[in-house]
Amino acid sequence: MSTPAYFVVSREQHESLVAAAYEHRGYLADEAAAAARMCSEASWHGIRTHNALKALHLDELFGSGSGGCVPGAQVEVRETRFSAVQSWNANRKLGQAVACEAVETCIRLADQYGSGTVAIDNAFHYLWGGGYVMDAAKRGYIAYTNCTSTLAEVVPFGGKFPTLGTNPHSWGFPTVDALGYPVVIDWATSEIAMGKVEQYKRENRKLESPFGIDKDGNPTDDPFAVVAILPFGRHKGYGLGLLNELYGAAIGGSLPTLRGRAAKAEGTGEKTTCAFYFQVVHPEAISGGDFSNGRDQAGNIAAVLKDIFSHGNEGCMLPGTIEANSAKMSEKAGGLLFTEAEVKGFIHLAEECSLDASAWDPTQLPVFAG
Amino acid sequence: MSTPAYFVVSREQHESLVAAAYEHRGYLADEAAAAARMCSEASWHGIRTHNALKALHLDELFGSGSGGCVPGAQVEVRETRFSAVQSWNANRKLGQAVACEAVETCIRLADQYGSGTVAIDNAFHYLWGGGYVMDAAKRGYIAYTNCTSTLAEVVPFGGKFPTLGTNPHSWGFPTVDALGYPVVIDWATSEIAMGKVEQYKRENRKLESPFGIDKDGNPTDDPFAVVAILPFGRHKGYGLGLLNELYGAAIGGSLPTLRGRAAKAEGTGEKTTCAFYFQVVHPEAISGGDFSNGRDQAGNIAAVLKDIFSHGNEGCMLPGTIEANSAKMSEKAGGLLFTEAEVKGFIHLAEECSLDASAWDPTQLPVFAG
Repeated sequence: MSTPAYFVVSREQHESLVAAAYEHRGYLADEAAAAARMCSEASWHGIRTHNALKALHLDELFGSGSGGCVPGAQVEVRETRFSAVQSWNANRKLGQAVACEAVETCIRLADQYGSGTVAIDNAFHYLWGGGYVMDAAKRGYIAYTNCTSTLAEVVPFGGKFPTLGTNPHSWGFPTVDALGYPVVIDWATSEIAMGKVEQYKRENRKLESPFGIDKDGNPTDDPFAVVAILPFGRHKGYGLGLLNELYGAAIGGSLPTLRGRAAKAEGTGEKTTCAFYFQVVHPEAISGGDFSNGRDQAGNIAAVLKDIFSHGNEGCMLPGTIEANSAKMSEKAGGLLFTEAEVKGFIHLAEECSLDASAWDPTQLPVFAG
Repeated sequence: MSTPAYFVVSREQHESLVAAAYEHRGYLADEAAAAARMCSEASWHGIRTHNALKALHLDELFGSGSGGCVPGAQVEVRETRFSAVQSWNANRKLGQAVACEAVETCIRLADQYGSGTVAIDNAFHYLWGGGYVMDAAKRGYIAYTNCTSTLAEVVPFGGKFPTLGTNPHSWGFPTVDALGYPVVIDWATSEIAMGKVEQYKRENRKLESPFGIDKDGNPTDDPFAVVAILPFGRHKGYGLGLLNELYGAAIGGSLPTLRGRAAKAEGTGEKTTCAFYFQVVHPEAISGGDFSNGRDQAGNIAAVLKDIFSHGNEGCMLPGTIEANSAKMSEKAGGLLFTEAEVKGFIHLAEECSLDASAWDPTQLPVFAG
């Protein structure tokens, strides 16, 4: 077997192209920069499913290409009598830019009140929830986000028709002192992503389990028969997916089956946008200060984690380890790691925007073999 | 098939006995009253696994019977610079009394700041997390709680030894206007409860799936071989169970494998108590005020739920429906519903406390056949 080899691209080169592609579509420089930075973060941490190519493809499908996202839109902060929680109208501004700003606001509120919450209506896809909570966790905070996914693709437990988004939840916990990296729990509430189903089709393989639902509402492991997907963990994952819809509904989101489907919603008077929910808690605010054997809070977290991953559990993986290992590999390689297909995608992107793609010539890029 | 019949006991009669049993063990009148009220709530909503008999049994095993819980203990509120988050030292006070007080404080903080959080160290089992968030949700708030479970019984994903509690999460959402009852998402992060494994042993039945781990760390569906249980939903439920341990560690909890095991912890200098985390958010604080077709927030939540449970999903159950249906049945019966075995348990309890058990004579209790 050959070692998988990657092409190494500097963050600067990557962000310069990605930001230019966003600006080419009409986004402001600061929006483009926020999006490009989050794409770099995703690739740095090995999140291949949410890299820049995916981000720009989403923008094409649902964003500036179709009116779901409005370049240059301004966030409005709603007046409120509540000091630790804010409600924002994103006016369909680019999701990554809004989310980065929301995390900053949550941190500022948490510094003052112990916790800070920002709820965001009329939002457009923030791409990778794990990235925002990871950022806050690296800075020492407990962070959480959920959002309603663009399309309803998940069938409620016991149901037949997809009326829930894949609705992700992301938690970041400040464990850098304890572990060297933050714990990041970050997943969709479906058994499998629709993108994975497409991949299984291309590879002509059955799903690992009957994670899908066919046109008659029956479970299936045949990717070609899948029309919708099941929530993970039976009624439990279903409850978690429903939760995002409830937050979304309380914030201002409309009917899940019309979300992200402008054509279908036409004339109904219903909105089609997503909603975001962000929260940061200052770890000092929840500390009881009474840790065993004179440990401090970080030392106590380290001791608890050590206990969990002893007793025969040494081989277990923590949520966040894969991302941390990918970051180590990127560090070692001295840049972001892309496959040949991805590099070709970036060249195609540069050409689309009439930008110079010479820096992306695979024969000129360093190769990293791990 | 015969209709299952229940004996009907008034809340007053039930709470009078349960409170007396707590007082008999040294608890103060207000502690006993809070515990008895939460036991009534559990039975009213059909939560048979967390009724008064279970509560008092837990107190015997881990509470006042063994020093894990201290009757008459006082909660200390820690001084803090954070106004929307409090940190409490429960000093091992009875869990239900502490939890009820925590919800009141969270609501008061949420009324003022938009969100209110109370983190509690040196805590003793609060029994039924769903009850607290249901209470807040009925009063119009979004509520959440998690806690570390007394014993580590769950194996981390990919591991062999139980180092995680069954660590429940409970969310309550204010949907009374939309549905007639609150959505309550409330479950342990294990595939199955240890109590269920015991039940399968008694019934000499295999588990539905290999939810257990045998002594060699292999999955098993044989209840007699089960020494520990798996997290639900593979790595996803595992992440959620780990989260409670991280909150617990940040609050002040000690090593999970020593929690609730005073004998094992002796001489180690390690604490054995649980930690609680409570949070309430005011729904007005997250409202964007921009709901489709002129709906208000409650109307929007109703419209979203209607969309989710249409399109062929009419038969789906919402989290909280079972509890709401049980409450309706209790309402119809005019009291709490207990099986004959449970009534016998209460008579036994009364005798233990040298209390008059005549009111519990099954021949005197009304019978409800549904």
